[in-house]
Amino acid sequence: MPSPQFDPIAEARRQWDTHWDDSPTAQMAAVTSIFRAQQILLARLNELLAAEDLTFARYEALMLLYYSRRGELPLGKISDRLQVHRASVTNVVDKLCERGYVERVPHEIDRRAVLARITPEGKRAAKKATKLLNGADMAMAPLTAQECERLYDTLRPLRADADGFDAA
Amino acid sequence: MPSPQFDPIAEARRQWDTHWDDSPTAQMAAVTSIFRAQQILLARLNELLAAEDLTFARYEALMLLYYSRRGELPLGKISDRLQVHRASVTNVVDKLCERGYVERVPHEIDRRAVLARITPEGKRAAKKATKLLNGADMAMAPLTAQECERLYDTLRPLRADADGFDAA
Repeated sequence: MPSPQFDPIAEARRQWDTHWDDSPTAQMAAVTSIFRAQQILLARLNELLAAEDLTFARYEALMLLYYSRRGELPLGKISDRLQVHRASVTNVVDKLCERGYVERVPHEIDRRAVLARITPEGKRAAKKATKLLNGADMAMAPLTAQECERLYDTLRPLRADADGFDAA
Repeated sequence: MPSPQFDPIAEARRQWDTHWDDSPTAQMAAVTSIFRAQQILLARLNELLAAEDLTFARYEALMLLYYSRRGELPLGKISDRLQVHRASVTNVVDKLCERGYVERVPHEIDRRAVLARITPEGKRAAKKATKLLNGADMAMAPLTAQECERLYDTLRPLRADADGFDAA
């Protein structure tokens, strides 16, 4: 895909203003900007993480295990915490197992539940990947830390509304 | 997936501060907020558009045809303008054809190229879907128009940097 020489969202906005009365063009521009930003950032993060044979989805699951008290979590809990469907978590854990970063272990009490446990190799990969991402400022360039802070603040009420936590 | 009773990004940020020195936590919070916002908004928009048997991806392609001068565009052009891969465009156009919103026609000059052309039924669906989305403020609640404008402005330099247009 060649890069457009003009801003496609500004162009869509112009079309919107021409065709529709009283349309929420600021909201339209915001939602399409968020969608494009997500595509850009995901591609950048995946490119950075390829050096550790990770994708961002696998990295997120690996970090959750890394931070967990015992280095292990039930798959259902990973699904809840990352807010992704259980099928995706199963797939992500499979890939992490293939790379030796995670192993599946049976739950001590509930024999039907499966735990994912981070391995020493997984811990090393988690550290290296985090240093990579931190060194690259999470691929947010050219936005400054202050602009990132503002994005986080502005999006928080939307997340709170959808995810049911208290935004205050 | 049950809703978390706490903010999972604020929680991740706390972990980050504890474990890593000099880490770009504002950038980490921003990128994960954008990813979560994208999930939330896509689900909301798809739910709204289901009434017209559309998804947001199909809606975007349909509107591009709706706004085009002749009501038709080559598939490659749709791919460029929506910044999605050609395979995805083919799939989206297939689905729009199944619903009778779009038809494939051969290019007048370049016989190897295929055009997608919006049908009268497609135009009606485009209008109805746009009224639905406009009436719902593009699912951006509880964010105000002013906050949406700020999001658009803040994200613009990131898009310009990645997509090669002039942000000025």
